[in-house]
Amino acid sequence: MALARPLAGIVPPLLTPLLDRDTLDAAGLERLVEHVLGGGASGLFLLGTTGEGPSLSHRLRRELVSRACAQVDGRASVLVGVTDTAFVETVDLARHAARAGADALVIAPPYYMPQGQPELREYLGHLLSELPLPLFLYNMPPLTKVPFELETVRWALDQDGVSGLKDSSGDMAFFSRIVALARGRPDWPVLMGPEELLGPSVLAGGHGGVPGGANLFPRLYVALHRAARDGDLERTRDLQERVSRVGERLYGFGRHPSATIKGIKCAAACLGLASDFMAEPFHRFRETERHQVEAALEELGPIVEV
Amino acid sequence: MALARPLAGIVPPLLTPLLDRDTLDAAGLERLVEHVLGGGASGLFLLGTTGEGPSLSHRLRRELVSRACAQVDGRASVLVGVTDTAFVETVDLARHAARAGADALVIAPPYYMPQGQPELREYLGHLLSELPLPLFLYNMPPLTKVPFELETVRWALDQDGVSGLKDSSGDMAFFSRIVALARGRPDWPVLMGPEELLGPSVLAGGHGGVPGGANLFPRLYVALHRAARDGDLERTRDLQERVSRVGERLYGFGRHPSATIKGIKCAAACLGLASDFMAEPFHRFRETERHQVEAALEELGPIVEV
Amino acid sequence: MALARPLAGIVPPLLTPLLDRDTLDAAGLERLVEHVLGGGASGLFLLGTTGEGPSLSHRLRRELVSRACAQVDGRASVLVGVTDTAFVETVDLARHAARAGADALVIAPPYYMPQGQPELREYLGHLLSELPLPLFLYNMPPLTKVPFELETVRWALDQDGVSGLKDSSGDMAFFSRIVALARGRPDWPVLMGPEELLGPSVLAGGHGGVPGGANLFPRLYVALHRAARDGDLERTRDLQERVSRVGERLYGFGRHPSATIKGIKCAAACLGLASDFMAEPFHRFRETERHQVEAALEELGPIVEV
Amino acid sequence: MALARPLAGIVPPLLTPLLDRDTLDAAGLERLVEHVLGGGASGLFLLGTTGEGPSLSHRLRRELVSRACAQVDGRASVLVGVTDTAFVETVDLARHAARAGADALVIAPPYYMPQGQPELREYLGHLLSELPLPLFLYNMPPLTKVPFELETVRWALDQDGVSGLKDSSGDMAFFSRIVALARGRPDWPVLMGPEELLGPSVLAGGHGGVPGGANLFPRLYVALHRAARDGDLERTRDLQERVSRVGERLYGFGRHPSATIKGIKCAAACLGLASDFMAEPFHRFRETERHQVEAALEELGPIVEV
Repeated sequence: MALARPLAGIVPPLLTPLLDRDTLDAAGLERLVEHVLGGGASGLFLLGTTGEGPSLSHRLRRELVSRACAQVDGRASVLVGVTDTAFVETVDLARHAARAGADALVIAPPYYMPQGQPELREYLGHLLSELPLPLFLYNMPPLTKVPFELETVRWALDQDGVSGLKDSSGDMAFFSRIVALARGRPDWPVLMGPEELLGPSVLAGGHGGVPGGANLFPRLYVALHRAARDGDLERTRDLQERVSRVGERLYGFGRHPSATIKGIKCAAACLGLASDFMAEPFHRFRETERHQVEAALEELGPIVEV
Repeated sequence: MALARPLAGIVPPLLTPLLDRDTLDAAGLERLVEHVLGGGASGLFLLGTTGEGPSLSHRLRRELVSRACAQVDGRASVLVGVTDTAFVETVDLARHAARAGADALVIAPPYYMPQGQPELREYLGHLLSELPLPLFLYNMPPLTKVPFELETVRWALDQDGVSGLKDSSGDMAFFSRIVALARGRPDWPVLMGPEELLGPSVLAGGHGGVPGGANLFPRLYVALHRAARDGDLERTRDLQERVSRVGERLYGFGRHPSATIKGIKCAAACLGLASDFMAEPFHRFRETERHQVEAALEELGPIVEV
Repeated sequence: MALARPLAGIVPPLLTPLLDRDTLDAAGLERLVEHVLGGGASGLFLLGTTGEGPSLSHRLRRELVSRACAQVDGRASVLVGVTDTAFVETVDLARHAARAGADALVIAPPYYMPQGQPELREYLGHLLSELPLPLFLYNMPPLTKVPFELETVRWALDQDGVSGLKDSSGDMAFFSRIVALARGRPDWPVLMGPEELLGPSVLAGGHGGVPGGANLFPRLYVALHRAARDGDLERTRDLQERVSRVGERLYGFGRHPSATIKGIKCAAACLGLASDFMAEPFHRFRETERHQVEAALEELGPIVEV
Repeated sequence: MALARPLAGIVPPLLTPLLDRDTLDAAGLERLVEHVLGGGASGLFLLGTTGEGPSLSHRLRRELVSRACAQVDGRASVLVGVTDTAFVETVDLARHAARAGADALVIAPPYYMPQGQPELREYLGHLLSELPLPLFLYNMPPLTKVPFELETVRWALDQDGVSGLKDSSGDMAFFSRIVALARGRPDWPVLMGPEELLGPSVLAGGHGGVPGGANLFPRLYVALHRAARDGDLERTRDLQERVSRVGERLYGFGRHPSATIKGIKCAAACLGLASDFMAEPFHRFRETERHQVEAALEELGPIVEV
């Protein structure tokens, strides 16, 4: 089982627009999908961290997957995050995603009970035998506590059904080692999570990225990917600095780790893309931060033009 | 909203006996409940870490709660873990628990997205307005990443609907500060998680504990609680050393953090209490470790007699 | 090689009074030594963390040891911290301490290069063959990164020349396991570092403590040790709460981990005991914090009376 | 006060060849210096982590500085690590380095007492007023616990006397932000520590690196720096993979963090460069590991040729 078409470039981790704790903002979702596809995104990653996946009811997760797949309608790859602490729930959502027409699944290690790497491999083995679609590994140790270590990635490269990896560890040395392992496997994309490392990762041989900011400014991230892929060092540095500037201006309001998601969701609302309602345990920005986001967007205007 | 009856003493975090990934071992559950009640337990804590709560399907969680409540039938307090990363799922399970006749709910911070303490308090505020039963806070930073900090516990003491705390931080200084805060609030029990600290915590004024080993040897833990509560220092030291001996002999097989739960579940099977099947991401012990557990149980025989 | 006399009770980690970066406050040192001995301290620990040992020039460390030993003149045990990242410097200071009349040495793991436990044991083995006095192990993982793990303590119990342990890990379960290991070895004292745990540690069988606050209020800590040693639970709880109150009121000014040492050194100056000058990388409190310390001392007045 | 000449390229963190705990291997030092200068190194960094700086007696540190400066004799920049927990000792060694003819000093945060960033800046301010040579900051949070945070680097850029930074955090996003801050300051080099990141860091605009492996194969690292500086992407990837291969083959023997230094020092001995004696708390490799290092060197032979 492999990806039906190769995946490279920018795959935004799609925000989940909400009207209420358990109500999708369907119109916002539609606008957002068109916005990122229009900006050149190669795929969408639903129900990731930026998409508040683990905070949503299982019912809403399924609704989101159905709607997004229907709208994309084959114009780009749709990856669906199915990470859950309960194996049974993961498999249920995976089957729903297959029926809805998704292209691939994404799984981070179950994030409550810490597993040793052999336990994690056994877990993946059980999972692969139940999954109806190709699987991306999602390395996110700051949130899952457990990483996919090098030995496990090496094992996964030989498993039928594993089709690539998204690395959000922020560890560029680890990423480079994975890229070296996957050399000669164009069917096995290695994608960078943190957008401050998008340029360096593609220069090092990575296939693309999953940058949260691409919900807002997809053209900028697509341009950065292309410059680095084509070896245009000067343009890569320039665009990477602009991408990093987006992060410095937008992801630092509020004192908590939630600042990044809140900043992106608030900015999406300011740009008229979608509602900024957030599922618990978070709450959208109040007035003060919203005004700061508006000011930041104004300042970023010329910077994000490409 | 407060506890219908005071809670003190030993509240085992009940194992969830399984025949398969999504099938309860109903007969095992029955035996286990009778075993711990017969041993003097004051209550049961369902769906905690030892009970593999987050690894179970939502359907199975509900079935467990219904069966356990029916069997206890008022003979002891039943606390139900409703921690989930999705608010909506937490509330659903809480309502089910109330209908099933549980006494209280237990919540750890949502364990995927890290919250700041103000965010955590706002989350708890939203939750309290939806919950049908009194709530225990479950401080478990090694697994949730986010602790209940002192300022949040101080806040919680004034909230209607919060009825106590279980502290599994392993930080005895923190525990002592909470005990001091809750002095004069016999309606607000402070319970110790790690069983190596059960004796010291009760000497310091704690109300009881939630020791995993009480699934196996409830009388031993009940005796330790009583000795410490009654200020019998010599007996407390003796019984605490025996409890610590249980941990040294039973919780150290295997190289991963799962060793404790696996050891307890395997020992429960060896003792004829219940099946040792485990939900993913774990797998019950294989032959080698099982033989080691059997040998350990034999050696522990005289030690756990009280 | 063993301690010339048994050690139990309160051993304050003595402040190092300074007039300048490299000038001892000799008169302050004299007053401070008399103050703690007069308050019932069983010994002094020189050049520990509270004594800013690692921040002082080697010349000043030697001067301090000479002066303090001369003044104590056998009235109590003098323990000298000889931890250094350079083996040669550790041995030099140890020999100086022996000549000056100290009773024992104290060593934490070298705190720059992280060692594995076998490396740490080999290091200790080399050191023991060069040291002229009995050695205490000083477990301080938050500052040294490397702990003395259980296996290493077990090994150390059998080494000629190792005479006890001070545990500042804050891990009460670890401490209890060491106490159990050292049962039947009254010549091998196990001392608690963090003063919030002094009461529980003595109830659990520990021999005493090394509380920073005993620089200020030695009688309070001596009384707590005695109450716990004698099994007077009610008095232990009362005195422990007072000790914890000292920490809450005095060790929380400023935002950095240095707050504890700064608070003790400032309070010592306010009490007329010694200068509050601090060696780099720290600086004594400015006016604002000093006024807060004065206010705290006033409030603590009745609490520290025993 | 600024660097007398610009610094870029490869600056090996020089091993300290030892015959005994406190005896320099003077002939080995001479060979090693000629080896790295002959290989194209732009400078030497003495008494860093790889040089076992903190493990050496102060007397030996001074001897090493004198000998190395005399031998280099102006052919390359000499940077001297003066990090110490004691301010007075740092200044003493700095003055010695100036007299010996060194070009610059290198300082990591004092590594016992954890400082807040304002305390760290105040410490640096005191230090700058006493130092006779320009100062590099050495960011090494895994060993010092305290990092130089972005705000402190921004402050340092404006301080007379601070002349650059070596970043061993392994955090490529942080490194890139520093490079962006230092843009337009060719007098303020930003150097990469971890050699797996040397290529990406120079592509991102960094000035060079301080790779431990350059003690052994200076030409390889110099070639990698030049390829990346000149924007030759294909050659950069090829050489970076060879550099990473060196690390995979040589730095993984033994189970402890010391494996890297031990591997380099052992390989230097196998190559006939210098003695592999190590200062406590470490011990050179025994026979088994030495044979593994010999085998690795044979395998690496063709890889390190450029």
